[in-house]
Amino acid sequence: MGTFDFDRAITLEPGDQPGRFRGELDGSWIIGNGINGGILMGMGALALRRVLDEDGRHPDPLALTAYFLSPSAPGAVVVGTEVLRAGRTMSTGQFSLTQVDASGPVERMRGLATFGDLTERVEPLLRTEPAPPMPPPEGCLGKDDEPRFRPRSTLLDRMDLRLDPASTGWLRGEPSQEGVIRGWLRFADGREPDVLSLLWALDALPPVAFDLGLIGWTPTLEFTSHLPAHPAPGWLQVVVTTGNVAGGLMEEDARIWDSTGRLVALSRQLCAWRLPRPDERDQE
Amino acid sequence: MGTFDFDRAITLEPGDQPGRFRGELDGSWIIGNGINGGILMGMGALALRRVLDEDGRHPDPLALTAYFLSPSAPGAVVVGTEVLRAGRTMSTGQFSLTQVDASGPVERMRGLATFGDLTERVEPLLRTEPAPPMPPPEGCLGKDDEPRFRPRSTLLDRMDLRLDPASTGWLRGEPSQEGVIRGWLRFADGREPDVLSLLWALDALPPVAFDLGLIGWTPTLEFTSHLPAHPAPGWLQVVVTTGNVAGGLMEEDARIWDSTGRLVALSRQLCAWRLPRPDERDQE
Repeated sequence: MGTFDFDRAITLEPGDQPGRFRGELDGSWIIGNGINGGILMGMGALALRRVLDEDGRHPDPLALTAYFLSPSAPGAVVVGTEVLRAGRTMSTGQFSLTQVDASGPVERMRGLATFGDLTERVEPLLRTEPAPPMPPPEGCLGKDDEPRFRPRSTLLDRMDLRLDPASTGWLRGEPSQEGVIRGWLRFADGREPDVLSLLWALDALPPVAFDLGLIGWTPTLEFTSHLPAHPAPGWLQVVVTTGNVAGGLMEEDARIWDSTGRLVALSRQLCAWRLPRPDERDQE
Repeated sequence: MGTFDFDRAITLEPGDQPGRFRGELDGSWIIGNGINGGILMGMGALALRRVLDEDGRHPDPLALTAYFLSPSAPGAVVVGTEVLRAGRTMSTGQFSLTQVDASGPVERMRGLATFGDLTERVEPLLRTEPAPPMPPPEGCLGKDDEPRFRPRSTLLDRMDLRLDPASTGWLRGEPSQEGVIRGWLRFADGREPDVLSLLWALDALPPVAFDLGLIGWTPTLEFTSHLPAHPAPGWLQVVVTTGNVAGGLMEEDARIWDSTGRLVALSRQLCAWRLPRPDERDQE
């Protein structure tokens, strides 16, 4: 632990009472105005694993939901947990991330998750969505290939992301209007994927709103992930889509296949979207 | 209030302290071994509306998530709430449903939801999924047309459900294996749909597992709904699909269009599935 960027980022120390933990959000996972939500979800999942998997039987988040309450900032964070149900094949718990600002403690995120053991859930595989056809990573667009692929973000330095050229029209001001962004993803430092990093990967691509020409903030209100399988080592194939954008809210679905072509994660989030104000645009 | 079945079912009385309510689960919404989960979600949403919408600005659940912890039974239920964030355009809260059994208080469900005002979110409509083509209700299969369309359930008496004949092969032992069930839905007593009843309607159709030939229990672990718009009066068009069934878990997506053809609700749940044991089968 601690040798890879992601593991360092979600590291938890014991807190002031059982079931409470202390973490540190650093500035190396910034996207736009805040800390990447995937880091917060990974941290919440790690805290719940500590309390739901004491006997080693329920290490894996099968479903995890997070409601985002306020924007996180670099600095200390306290993760509280509550065990709601400890069952034979699954356990369910709640987590809460809180930071202290000038006004006192402010909750950043409240979440719920059910844990189990994915190694017992490999078979039977009755139905699964196939990975979509995509050019190989070598045929995709990395951050070094395209100067405009550089938002105000440190997050991009943590990962190797290669976007399918068919979903990069927005970088040239020509969004496809299909509501799809596809890419290959792995950590820049060689860390292989696991269930905790899948929670991060589901929230790592550019907002699918960009492919609709909506280049602005898309803060997440609610984010739910399902993890059907442990990922194999290697590249992850990530596809984000949206079918519904109305009244300032947008649904965004993400799906991830591992290097063997198995679907290993899927998520849906509801986010708000608005165009940046002129003063915000100036900062970019 | 109280003149329609659904409103009676989710009726809440003040509890023993602010933010707590008392309800009564009756036996008229039974499906299989338990109370229909949609009633519990409707009750949780109503409780949150009471605490998040005191000033009338945030009456509508934009997103609502429920984690099911134990099977509910007819009888008294206590609904607890916690306000997590009261904002200008949205507010977020938590709810919890608890019943007392022989062992003491047992939590049935824990949930989170973000409320706002859908009347402010009608426009702009940038992207929405169109309703799928389906025969009209008169060309679909109702419970009086098909004797096998009668599971051990009182739920069916509460509603008028007409299934698209193309997705009723499972009633004849010939599931389509497409993983889709389509139907028209309205309340049997003429109550028109609203955002609270949409939360129920998302969970009212037969499990999509039936269309894959998996006729058994499919208890819900996690259920998240997004509600993009207020429904117009009239029939609801409901489609449930599944793309992923593996290791005893199944993803089930539901979508609802109102009588004007607008998408008004969408949900995804993770449920477990197993075939009934012989003694359970005997009871059916």
